Amino acid sequence: MRFGCELRGDPDTRIESVATLGNASSGSIAFLANPRYRAQLAHTRASAVVLSHVAAEDCRTAMLVSQNPYATYARIAAILHPPAPSRPGIDPSAVVAADAHIDPSAQIGAFVAVGPGVSIGARSIVGPHCVVGAKVVIADDVRLVARVTLGERVRIGARSVLHPGAVIGADGFGFAPDNGRWVKVPQLGSVAIGADVEVGANTTVDCGAIDDTVIEEGVKLDNQIQIGHNVRIGAHSAIAGCTGISGSTRIGSRCMIGGMVGIAGHLNIADDVVITACSAVSHSITRPGVYSSTLTIEEARLWRRLVAYFKRGASVGARLRALERAVGVKSAQDENHD
Amino acid sequence: MRFGCELRGDPDTRIESVATLGNASSGSIAFLANPRYRAQLAHTRASAVVLSHVAAEDCRTAMLVSQNPYATYARIAAILHPPAPSRPGIDPSAVVAADAHIDPSAQIGAFVAVGPGVSIGARSIVGPHCVVGAKVVIADDVRLVARVTLGERVRIGARSVLHPGAVIGADGFGFAPDNGRWVKVPQLGSVAIGADVEVGANTTVDCGAIDDTVIEEGVKLDNQIQIGHNVRIGAHSAIAGCTGISGSTRIGSRCMIGGMVGIAGHLNIADDVVITACSAVSHSITRPGVYSSTLTIEEARLWRRLVAYFKRGASVGARLRALERAVGVKSAQDENHD
Amino acid sequence: MRFGCELRGDPDTRIESVATLGNASSGSIAFLANPRYRAQLAHTRASAVVLSHVAAEDCRTAMLVSQNPYATYARIAAILHPPAPSRPGIDPSAVVAADAHIDPSAQIGAFVAVGPGVSIGARSIVGPHCVVGAKVVIADDVRLVARVTLGERVRIGARSVLHPGAVIGADGFGFAPDNGRWVKVPQLGSVAIGADVEVGANTTVDCGAIDDTVIEEGVKLDNQIQIGHNVRIGAHSAIAGCTGISGSTRIGSRCMIGGMVGIAGHLNIADDVVITACSAVSHSITRPGVYSSTLTIEEARLWRRLVAYFKRGASVGARLRALERAVGVKSAQDENHD
Repeated sequence: MRFGCELRGDPDTRIESVATLGNASSGSIAFLANPRYRAQLAHTRASAVVLSHVAAEDCRTAMLVSQNPYATYARIAAILHPPAPSRPGIDPSAVVAADAHIDPSAQIGAFVAVGPGVSIGARSIVGPHCVVGAKVVIADDVRLVARVTLGERVRIGARSVLHPGAVIGADGFGFAPDNGRWVKVPQLGSVAIGADVEVGANTTVDCGAIDDTVIEEGVKLDNQIQIGHNVRIGAHSAIAGCTGISGSTRIGSRCMIGGMVGIAGHLNIADDVVITACSAVSHSITRPGVYSSTLTIEEARLWRRLVAYFKRGASVGARLRALERAVGVKSAQDENHD
Repeated sequence: MRFGCELRGDPDTRIESVATLGNASSGSIAFLANPRYRAQLAHTRASAVVLSHVAAEDCRTAMLVSQNPYATYARIAAILHPPAPSRPGIDPSAVVAADAHIDPSAQIGAFVAVGPGVSIGARSIVGPHCVVGAKVVIADDVRLVARVTLGERVRIGARSVLHPGAVIGADGFGFAPDNGRWVKVPQLGSVAIGADVEVGANTTVDCGAIDDTVIEEGVKLDNQIQIGHNVRIGAHSAIAGCTGISGSTRIGSRCMIGGMVGIAGHLNIADDVVITACSAVSHSITRPGVYSSTLTIEEARLWRRLVAYFKRGASVGARLRALERAVGVKSAQDENHD
Repeated sequence: MRFGCELRGDPDTRIESVATLGNASSGSIAFLANPRYRAQLAHTRASAVVLSHVAAEDCRTAMLVSQNPYATYARIAAILHPPAPSRPGIDPSAVVAADAHIDPSAQIGAFVAVGPGVSIGARSIVGPHCVVGAKVVIADDVRLVARVTLGERVRIGARSVLHPGAVIGADGFGFAPDNGRWVKVPQLGSVAIGADVEVGANTTVDCGAIDDTVIEEGVKLDNQIQIGHNVRIGAHSAIAGCTGISGSTRIGSRCMIGGMVGIAGHLNIADDVVITACSAVSHSITRPGVYSSTLTIEEARLWRRLVAYFKRGASVGARLRALERAVGVKSAQDENHD
């Protein structure tokens, strides 16, 4: 079968659109990937459902049984609802430098400003209100949805998608302290973004101070992420919204970083590292694995008691030592550290 | 009285503008809502002050005694300093699709791009540099201040205000892992924003994956908030800046969420929940109340000691057990968990 | 010597560009400021290196020995790679109010919207897609890189640089609760930004509610920072990315605030305060010093155990008290607080 999965039920089921299990109607296909929604299988009006072998027994509709139902659903949805192709041409309101090279199959939207020396590849779409700085190179099949800003010499790899408000190549935050003032350090590098990268809305990737900031192929960045100068993010890593990565840190390949994570500068994060949401990273990570410093909510009354206790932590050490002395118990590993 | 409060002092006091207690001059009206500024009452040069019954005794000027001085002040300020009304018409620099329906009383600013099938209601203001995607529906008296981006099929309810840099309806962060790579899951839904909503500068609200993301009436969103796909925020909830809400989470009505809060995906937060700033939420909340995981600063030397102690936490359990064994004290609730 | 440092090696060494130690080639000058890169001195192909007295012994190239190598490097780089000067004139695509006063030496880029009563100083550059609200005053030598939004009456001091996506003067987050709804409090102030300020990409600074929000001279703001209404930031303070400061808080001069710090409203932070990344500040700070509430990652398995222990904190107090009673040890400072 086309999607590498097993069809159970009527092979002539006609599917015209996708739907959620809860809101589906006849003619639509739904999917079940998150077990927390499994109970909805019993009541769905979908004509077919993409699901795993395990969940199949609860399903009463036609089904596509897949080892990876979410990916199978994604591929089916992309065929049923393909993105609009480029409409070749340059909107008359755009301002394009005379020496810019724009492929005839590319689409340049309203109020786009294209600087000198720019190159834009085949079938790429530069949506309304984008600013494309001097000497930018955009490969084929790229989509700048709208209002994306690319600084000088930024390169964007094939098939990458950048969402509105993204700013690629603004100055990094480089200032040298000098007698109580700050001397600006010129930010002279640029940003290289690989193929098949996605950059979310209002995400910022600063240019390098001297060398480039690099986002390797297949990286997925959610909204409102901040990437400092000279960061390198390894291939196929995914980062959730509101995370910030400070300058010169290197993230490995295939990492998964949760939302609102703060990562200090000049660190090395290994390949295949997972960091849970709202964690802070202040040292390098040399081994794959899951890392966390997330503290989750409690009722505020309880929380205040826990914090009060935490903030008396050192006194607990003293009390334990006093007790251990009185009782004659030894606690070798701790007595030198409190 | 017009604002439901009691006037004390000269009823002919002439008020032309608002001012803070500290910087007021004659002809202005100030207010006192936060008790931390009460000492300023003694020295203010305001001609009148809006305040509570409790604070009235410290006031030497004319006063409006209100049960809700902040709301009373807000209403007076809105009358003294009304927002500019719409100036009907379409700026000649705007690019508007031929089939867009724009009410003759609406105002379309410079460099606005309006897509096909759009509808814009009476007296609405679309400020400069806004991008209004295909089939967007904007109700009456809406104000897009400037540079707001609305994706396809977004709906904005009456009287809502969206600030510069807001991006409504960018793709949600949906990627299916597949053999070490990511398959993009088409983001096919849109965003429905109710009436009387406020959306802060550079805030992002992603479109739903299949169904819509929903912001109900009266919700107030501060700046730089990130709302993931298929989130639903209940009526009259208020969220402070820099907070992020992951996909498919539902927030109840009348919630108050502090700044820089991170909320995981697929959760249910009840009505009337308060979450303090900088907290992380990783499980659903079923009951109204105040919740927190905020840890506040200490001097760094002390903080490092507290953290060192925290990170030896498990050893404290072992030491306690050893002491309890030695002394013959029982601690039933803990001995199985350390 | 011109940069106040000592030259060692061939005084005729020809330098044409800057480079990193690792990627330098002949004709370039590199620098060493962070000791973690010192090992690269042995292998660099730079023709000269700026470094400290201490590091000089490891260097085999020509060198400039400086007491502040990073600042010295910054000044040299600015001479070798100066920013492009303004190209006087107004782009034909810009929309400029008839009564705006624009210095003839200023540069106004593509698709810029300039409102009535605006004043723009000598040699200032207003890049493409900027929105300059009514009555804005921009001093000399300012650079709005691109797509900066300035609300009404904002003032920008000389030589300040604002990066793409910055929004200065959007409404503060002011709503008065009133019977389960929110009444908007008109935001009537503006923003005053001093000289030599830098504002990062997608950073937002809200207008004051009545008086102005103030950013004093020499302040450096990184990307995606949120500054609430009526905040005042003292001269020469530097704030890293993703930090949020709530309304009416005052930050002293020469403070250094790390990334992703959350600061509550109505606080006073003294001069010369340092706050480490990812901290939360909920009370005022009256003395200079370093403050922190950063918790850094551990392997998730260990982290979960630490959190479980933390959340049983109160029971530790009870167990300690029971032990102290049994053993007859006194712990005066704690027994009344658990």
